[in-house]
Amino acid sequence: MKKPTSSLDAVFNPKSVAVTGASPGKQGQLFLDSFLASGFKGKVYAINSKGQEVSGMKAYKSVAELPGPVDYVVCCIPAPAVPDFVRQCGAKGVKAVSVFTAGFSEIGSEEGKRLEKETVRAARETGVRIIGPNCLGVYAPKVGFSYTSDFPRQSGSVAYVCQSGGNSVYVTRAAGYRGVRFSKVISYGNACDINECELLEYLVQDEDTKIVAIYIEGVRNGPRFYRALTELARTRPVVVLKGGYTKAGAKAAASHTGSLAGSDEVWDELLQQAGAIRVFSLEELVDVLVTVSLLPTPEGRRVGIFGGGGGATVLGADDWSKYGFVLPPLPRAIKEELRASVPTEAGLILHNPIDLSGFAYSERFYGLIKRLLTYEDFADLSVIHIGFGQAAWFSTSTFEDQIGIFRDAVIQLKKETSRPLALVMQYLITGWDWQKGVDDLQQGCAEAGVPVYYSMASAARAIDRVLRRHEKRQTAGERNGRQDHCPRSGQGHRK
Amino acid sequence: MKKPTSSLDAVFNPKSVAVTGASPGKQGQLFLDSFLASGFKGKVYAINSKGQEVSGMKAYKSVAELPGPVDYVVCCIPAPAVPDFVRQCGAKGVKAVSVFTAGFSEIGSEEGKRLEKETVRAARETGVRIIGPNCLGVYAPKVGFSYTSDFPRQSGSVAYVCQSGGNSVYVTRAAGYRGVRFSKVISYGNACDINECELLEYLVQDEDTKIVAIYIEGVRNGPRFYRALTELARTRPVVVLKGGYTKAGAKAAASHTGSLAGSDEVWDELLQQAGAIRVFSLEELVDVLVTVSLLPTPEGRRVGIFGGGGGATVLGADDWSKYGFVLPPLPRAIKEELRASVPTEAGLILHNPIDLSGFAYSERFYGLIKRLLTYEDFADLSVIHIGFGQAAWFSTSTFEDQIGIFRDAVIQLKKETSRPLALVMQYLITGWDWQKGVDDLQQGCAEAGVPVYYSMASAARAIDRVLRRHEKRQTAGERNGRQDHCPRSGQGHRK
Repeated sequence: MKKPTSSLDAVFNPKSVAVTGASPGKQGQLFLDSFLASGFKGKVYAINSKGQEVSGMKAYKSVAELPGPVDYVVCCIPAPAVPDFVRQCGAKGVKAVSVFTAGFSEIGSEEGKRLEKETVRAARETGVRIIGPNCLGVYAPKVGFSYTSDFPRQSGSVAYVCQSGGNSVYVTRAAGYRGVRFSKVISYGNACDINECELLEYLVQDEDTKIVAIYIEGVRNGPRFYRALTELARTRPVVVLKGGYTKAGAKAAASHTGSLAGSDEVWDELLQQAGAIRVFSLEELVDVLVTVSLLPTPEGRRVGIFGGGGGATVLGADDWSKYGFVLPPLPRAIKEELRASVPTEAGLILHNPIDLSGFAYSERFYGLIKRLLTYEDFADLSVIHIGFGQAAWFSTSTFEDQIGIFRDAVIQLKKETSRPLALVMQYLITGWDWQKGVDDLQQGCAEAGVPVYYSMASAARAIDRVLRRHEKRQTAGERNGRQDHCPRSGQGHRK
Repeated sequence: MKKPTSSLDAVFNPKSVAVTGASPGKQGQLFLDSFLASGFKGKVYAINSKGQEVSGMKAYKSVAELPGPVDYVVCCIPAPAVPDFVRQCGAKGVKAVSVFTAGFSEIGSEEGKRLEKETVRAARETGVRIIGPNCLGVYAPKVGFSYTSDFPRQSGSVAYVCQSGGNSVYVTRAAGYRGVRFSKVISYGNACDINECELLEYLVQDEDTKIVAIYIEGVRNGPRFYRALTELARTRPVVVLKGGYTKAGAKAAASHTGSLAGSDEVWDELLQQAGAIRVFSLEELVDVLVTVSLLPTPEGRRVGIFGGGGGATVLGADDWSKYGFVLPPLPRAIKEELRASVPTEAGLILHNPIDLSGFAYSERFYGLIKRLLTYEDFADLSVIHIGFGQAAWFSTSTFEDQIGIFRDAVIQLKKETSRPLALVMQYLITGWDWQKGVDDLQQGCAEAGVPVYYSMASAARAIDRVLRRHEKRQTAGERNGRQDHCPRSGQGHRK
């Protein structure tokens, strides 16, 4: 079936782009530099009022002067000049303008509101589509198109629709670093023309998108949003962070993007009914994206936990248990086998969580976990953990060696198992230079497809969120006579 | 009033120490190296069975051979040899032995339990006090005595009683980095002799200790523990993390330190009645210690929030609001004044939270916040925030300059106000080398006495926990006819 053509195609697949307001040292130049650094395959133009060379490129004084056609323009000129600029873009045949400029409806002044209306009128009259204003625009790695230079070059399956520029950067950067890859990210700001509904409807048809993330402060058309969200969530995981769910947050949202935030009860009901996964922070949004991108969905809630540190083991058991996971005991036979394989039992506590303190950075670590991973009761989920802050004698001199042994073991184990396996790396900000060791561990895991979390609690919470969706769909499936999967575990207590 | 003499004095004020099992490359050497690196003013001896030189020091073959008296010995020899070693220590006049060795009651075997009983008997017979087994022992910066080399050299007012070695390291390291200073930290493990009750009773008399932190998995004598805890909490903030509060966690605790964890309902009631601040993770324990150590107690719940990022502003308002804080609006007069002081209003949203996006790393930042800090409605608490992950165009080339401007402004503002001021630095693990900038910002703040938190939610949660204790005491004070303070604010909704 051929996908219907959409005026949003130009937004995600521009053949040529320009930046206006691209003067040296101004924010327009930063957009320009990002396009140049991101491997965009089409033509890139710079525009500034003086025609002043920027980033080694000739600049044109107006969009009219550009020597070739241009699909997509980033607009960084002051708000009062924007409506007229959109008309010039219309005359040039530009398909979409992403308006970075702030100072429209979000500042609450009559003038700001008037300018936004005027911009919309110019768009309607010319057929130019507007993203924003007050936004960063589009990141589309498939065409090498980005608004920062540090987002991943590779394309992936996550689409992220985000009403905040800063929050679009945080999530894309943080999840990208942890191995999540995006089909497209759109920071859409005040949504004066292209809005959340149209974007979600577009994504329903988008074959590149298997997972959807949404940061949203308010919608203009609730029923239409609900329909699109439901349709999306029917066929793929949709994760939603609703900003402004308290009264104070809703007031802040009104100032930020001019949004009417709506009551939280209505939102909660709407998101549940639509089948979306609701999260409450950027960190949690990233954790859930890491989970749905990298972790095979566990078939149940039995978890085996392996790592070093008695105290970490106790608190970890609390965390996993709190989120509804079950920690099956180790059978006597495996215990005996493992005991026989080490020179001393001190530093090896063979209850689940299994404390491998004495062996976490030794060559024995791999072998011990390799054996544990074969245990049938750990088939749902196995978690390896390491706490940088707990180890008494880590020092910069031995850290990289120790971490290297640990990293190689985790990556090797991942290669040898198809079972769900996750790593919890409890980081700690200190004055120590852990950069290289942490980076090697994290990037090694990301490349091997191991989801990495930064605390037991955040891992348990994110995997629980994903499992709850899975379990709900299984129950619904059974009710409808479809039995895709027989859940093997699961218990009531969740949070 | 003269403090009564306690047999624990030798634990916290040894004049001379020895490490047994201090063979090159073994863990005993790491203890030895920590003593040598921590500036311990007394005599340090090494003992190993071969009398083999270690860390450039002569080593003795037994405690009997030591040429002078020794107060405190760290024991790293195998468990079966420990009871006899304690007897030798008794003969030498040693006052306390800290047993690092594991493999006692915590492994659950009959032999482990027998060895622990045997060790206690040796201690009772000789009068030697035992810390542990299965512990790291004592950090007492006043006498330059530490079990890792990276803990702060300066002494402070926080005592930390911790049943887990790893958790003692995490909290001391993490809180130390953020400016918290300790009077003493004790990792007491299986508590076969010196236990949590005796330690708390000692701290009641300890003039150096104004704040107490406790990580505990189980107690042997509930009523005695409750009495000591209540007495401590009457006169100073006491923060408690109870490990093993779920069934799975309690099982893990039994394996870790042989503790009977007890029902969580009983614990919750006990901690509330005693007036302790209960926390549920190591991170939260550190956040509360940072708060009680560095933040003047807010008189109410009104908070002014200043920083960059519209999305961060919305989510931040949600976080503070969720934890019962009130965000008062800015009066028109101040808005007008601030508007008049900047060239453009775009990038400046004058609602609370106040979004200074356009100015966060410019010289104007200081002046804008300086004015905001004088506003009477922000007298309870002001929070400055910075999000490393949100800024689209941070790069390693400009990061340190931008952070430097920001850091100098925060430190200068702290010097000029006596009002409660906090910094939220939303960190993000990436492959970028932010080490120096982050370290300068964090250490500059720690030295200036600014509490630093790593997310809005964790800041709001920790300050809420401390305020709840404050409010409860005020209410109790009023009920008893004492009116130390008139609370100026506060609302019901808390979490």
